[in-house]
Amino acid sequence: MVCSTSCSSPCYTLGFLQKNNSLGEEGRLSGALSERQKNLFTCENSDRDVRFRRTETDFSNMFARDLLPAKNGEEATIQFLLELVDILTNYIRKTFDRSTKVLDFHHPHQLLEGMEGFNLELSDQPESLEQILVDCRDTLKYGVRTGHPRFFNQLSTGLDIIGLAGEWLTSTANTNMFTYEIAPVFVLMEQLTLKKMREMIGWPSGEGDGIFSPGGAISNMYSVMIARYKYFPDVKTKGMSAAPRLVLFTSEHSHYSIKKAGAALGFGSENVVLLSTDERGRVIPSDLEAKILDVKQKGYHPLFVNATAGSTVYGAFDPINEIADICEKYNMWLHVDGAWGGGLLMSRKHRHKFSGVERANSVTWNPHKMMGVPLQCSAILVREKGILSGCNSMCAGYLFQPDKQYDVSFDTGDKAIQCGRHVDIFKFWLMWKAKGTIGFEQHIDRCLDLSQYLYEKIRNREGYEMVFQGVPQHTNVCFWYIPPSLRGMDPNSQEYREKLHKVAPKIKALMMESGTTMVGYQPQGQKVNFFRMVISNPAALQSDIDFLIDEIERLGHGL
Amino acid sequence: MVCSTSCSSPCYTLGFLQKNNSLGEEGRLSGALSERQKNLFTCENSDRDVRFRRTETDFSNMFARDLLPAKNGEEATIQFLLELVDILTNYIRKTFDRSTKVLDFHHPHQLLEGMEGFNLELSDQPESLEQILVDCRDTLKYGVRTGHPRFFNQLSTGLDIIGLAGEWLTSTANTNMFTYEIAPVFVLMEQLTLKKMREMIGWPSGEGDGIFSPGGAISNMYSVMIARYKYFPDVKTKGMSAAPRLVLFTSEHSHYSIKKAGAALGFGSENVVLLSTDERGRVIPSDLEAKILDVKQKGYHPLFVNATAGSTVYGAFDPINEIADICEKYNMWLHVDGAWGGGLLMSRKHRHKFSGVERANSVTWNPHKMMGVPLQCSAILVREKGILSGCNSMCAGYLFQPDKQYDVSFDTGDKAIQCGRHVDIFKFWLMWKAKGTIGFEQHIDRCLDLSQYLYEKIRNREGYEMVFQGVPQHTNVCFWYIPPSLRGMDPNSQEYREKLHKVAPKIKALMMESGTTMVGYQPQGQKVNFFRMVISNPAALQSDIDFLIDEIERLGHGL
Repeated sequence: MVCSTSCSSPCYTLGFLQKNNSLGEEGRLSGALSERQKNLFTCENSDRDVRFRRTETDFSNMFARDLLPAKNGEEATIQFLLELVDILTNYIRKTFDRSTKVLDFHHPHQLLEGMEGFNLELSDQPESLEQILVDCRDTLKYGVRTGHPRFFNQLSTGLDIIGLAGEWLTSTANTNMFTYEIAPVFVLMEQLTLKKMREMIGWPSGEGDGIFSPGGAISNMYSVMIARYKYFPDVKTKGMSAAPRLVLFTSEHSHYSIKKAGAALGFGSENVVLLSTDERGRVIPSDLEAKILDVKQKGYHPLFVNATAGSTVYGAFDPINEIADICEKYNMWLHVDGAWGGGLLMSRKHRHKFSGVERANSVTWNPHKMMGVPLQCSAILVREKGILSGCNSMCAGYLFQPDKQYDVSFDTGDKAIQCGRHVDIFKFWLMWKAKGTIGFEQHIDRCLDLSQYLYEKIRNREGYEMVFQGVPQHTNVCFWYIPPSLRGMDPNSQEYREKLHKVAPKIKALMMESGTTMVGYQPQGQKVNFFRMVISNPAALQSDIDFLIDEIERLGHGL
Repeated sequence: MVCSTSCSSPCYTLGFLQKNNSLGEEGRLSGALSERQKNLFTCENSDRDVRFRRTETDFSNMFARDLLPAKNGEEATIQFLLELVDILTNYIRKTFDRSTKVLDFHHPHQLLEGMEGFNLELSDQPESLEQILVDCRDTLKYGVRTGHPRFFNQLSTGLDIIGLAGEWLTSTANTNMFTYEIAPVFVLMEQLTLKKMREMIGWPSGEGDGIFSPGGAISNMYSVMIARYKYFPDVKTKGMSAAPRLVLFTSEHSHYSIKKAGAALGFGSENVVLLSTDERGRVIPSDLEAKILDVKQKGYHPLFVNATAGSTVYGAFDPINEIADICEKYNMWLHVDGAWGGGLLMSRKHRHKFSGVERANSVTWNPHKMMGVPLQCSAILVREKGILSGCNSMCAGYLFQPDKQYDVSFDTGDKAIQCGRHVDIFKFWLMWKAKGTIGFEQHIDRCLDLSQYLYEKIRNREGYEMVFQGVPQHTNVCFWYIPPSLRGMDPNSQEYREKLHKVAPKIKALMMESGTTMVGYQPQGQKVNFFRMVISNPAALQSDIDFLIDEIERLGHGL
């Protein structure tokens, strides 16, 4: 049994006694409390923990109003939560069980019509707790098991148990990151974790700034905002008219959030210039320089370059050092979007792909992708201290009072564009504690090895064609599956292209309907629909990769 | 016992048998599995649920790597999670216990130095699961109990058990809102819930658009973006230079996020014009019209008015109908920031304060504030269908493929400025199911009654002065406590003002150090620091209000 260091030995005994004394007691099934338990429940010493046990509880006549803070609501509350935990632990068990489906697919209209008593409509009157528990079960039943060993559909996959525990605790604590006052421990965890991340980036002594934001798109948006503030601080007060026409540069393979940021922040998406890439999807530095010169020639101001470290589709790493040289030459802000690639900074074997990242002005890094932290967990890291606050602070008096009794430099909320901010740090901090840096490293290396296994398996296999040649830089393996009916056709013919374009969507639809596995597909530029396999799932084994390939062939063979 | 409708009766028996058969078994303490249990664990029928039981588990030599997906990691995983749930349920029990403290205050440097073995630093090597559980316990120990009946510090207070259950499930499902493909149930729940909210606003048939966003500040930012897109769609592609100088209007009492949005989106904070208010903090419509005319006179373009429904400090409701008249007259966008007040739409008694809201173009409404939904849960609701998508879509091919097998109009992610989006809907949907609309109504009415109780109690009490006169519109009760040493001084003297300004911070610091209760304070305009009491906590009773007043007097009497 685990005791906190402040827990005295009577606590241990108490828990132990209660446990051995539990199920034989009369009156438990009816929900009544024994005298011993009543004593335990009213125990006022907050360092003594009570161990609760499941009882058979009839929830059909119980309602939310019977739970805490209702008078005598404690037992009902505990039993309700334990019943829910039973549902959740069963779900977790099945998630890792390869004999269960990844999903049980239904069309929107089917779910909207109501499935066997699962009714999504809301009403004026309350439902019983029994119905609520059934709804919880059904919600999971008709969802997608993103932690299943054969779920490869997104950059974020897997179900990390420590991270999950962190999220359960976070939601129980239910607080907000804006001040030290109401989130003292979490604010400090964020500060220490951001510092560790900056050390890994290579900024001297881990100095700098940063914040966790609701996803990589918002982190990238931050980078554009602070770049603008750095060079044209008057825009904060006077608007875009206080600056010349500002231009942002990013790869044609980069994430669409840079363009979204350009549109949202008032630059205009046309002022986001897309850079050409080589056949592996990496920015060509000379193209960047040519486009900067072109923009300058037109009298516009080149402000910002985004270098992608791990592109969404190809997993490509732009050459950061060469881009940094150009940014220095033209006095531009260098942002590195490592939303997907960031985890590789934790791997001694793979971090060379980030070579030059320490020269960046800002970096996006999403632990919720490659590192398996539950959604959401994204950091924007900034080399210059104070600039986030300078860019965003509005000094709201009701929240950030200067006359508090503690060091208010720990009230970090005014750096954010949000006011309330969800606690995204705890699960990540807890995972780092539980795995150590080496645990993350092992996970990263394993995923990259698996991805190379897939690459080696299919690169010369009949019926497969790689979208780009060579070992992938990240875990992205992009390929076409060519059904027998298309093999031998002229690959440059329009007919072939049209037919091939339909193969991946068709196989994907069949996959979802059979529920066996999930993998993404998309076109890219002139290339017709292809599969993009990514591996971030810690549950995936070589046998799951084999399964995926078998499944693609099973479903696609007859197309 | 609860069974899903698809669960056959053997499941019931199975769980029941197992339960009665549990604690007497040999070998459980050593972590070994009985034959019966092995059979249960390998049961492949996914509709049969297994009931797990706590065992005494020694976590001191176990690590994260021993949990699922590790081979044979199932038992360790379940025991670890159940141990965590024990910690969490004890925390919940204590949260509602008035004999526990709201917080155990420590300064940042104290926590950073490490408290009795609670070390926040991260390291390269993993910690044992025992240490991880201790860390969880300590994280809660040094945090703030935001669900405590005497926590009044923020607009978001309370710990709703159904909402908590919803969050635990959400993090177990660990998926992402961007597509129907990976979040079918949650996407539909969001759609149905937003429609209900629009019906409550009063838009015909609940038509329109909307999305859940990471907090009210981002929701307000959305409103400014779509207003700009509505009148000057070219800004999306060409930037702010495609529009004349655009001006936003909002109350001097409004939330700072409107100004933040103005700065971030390229308008400039100087182009956010602050409107004068009456002594209750409500916008004076004639001031709005005068300022619009002034702006027009200067050749700028008045674009957008924010009407606050429940201001942060006073809880004031701006007169929406009169503001809507002016917006119609000048062809401007009307946004209603109901982040704090939104819940009152659920109360037949109080919704008249929103009179005219159906004339708004967009509305922010945070269920995570007055309605007690766990953080984060904020909606931006829009009257015109399609405009959110028009404003924000970038049509990323890798995510929003048009050639999927289902109706892709359910892939709502491209409406968002985020890419990945946390599932904020489920806890809210579940609470609505569990309480019904009437449950929310009762909660709202109770909080407003309690607030009126506080108002009546102190408005003529010796040593109190109200910041504004009359029954508060929302639950905000703003007041000064005047210690005996200040009573009788000239209230207009500089000395009095300076002394009074220090009273609330001093009492607050003492409160936090004694850990008995928490309430916010701030200055506003020319008014020196005063307490802002807000009630959204469902656990609060009249006796807690009495306690707060006694505590203020106990701590402040000698100042």
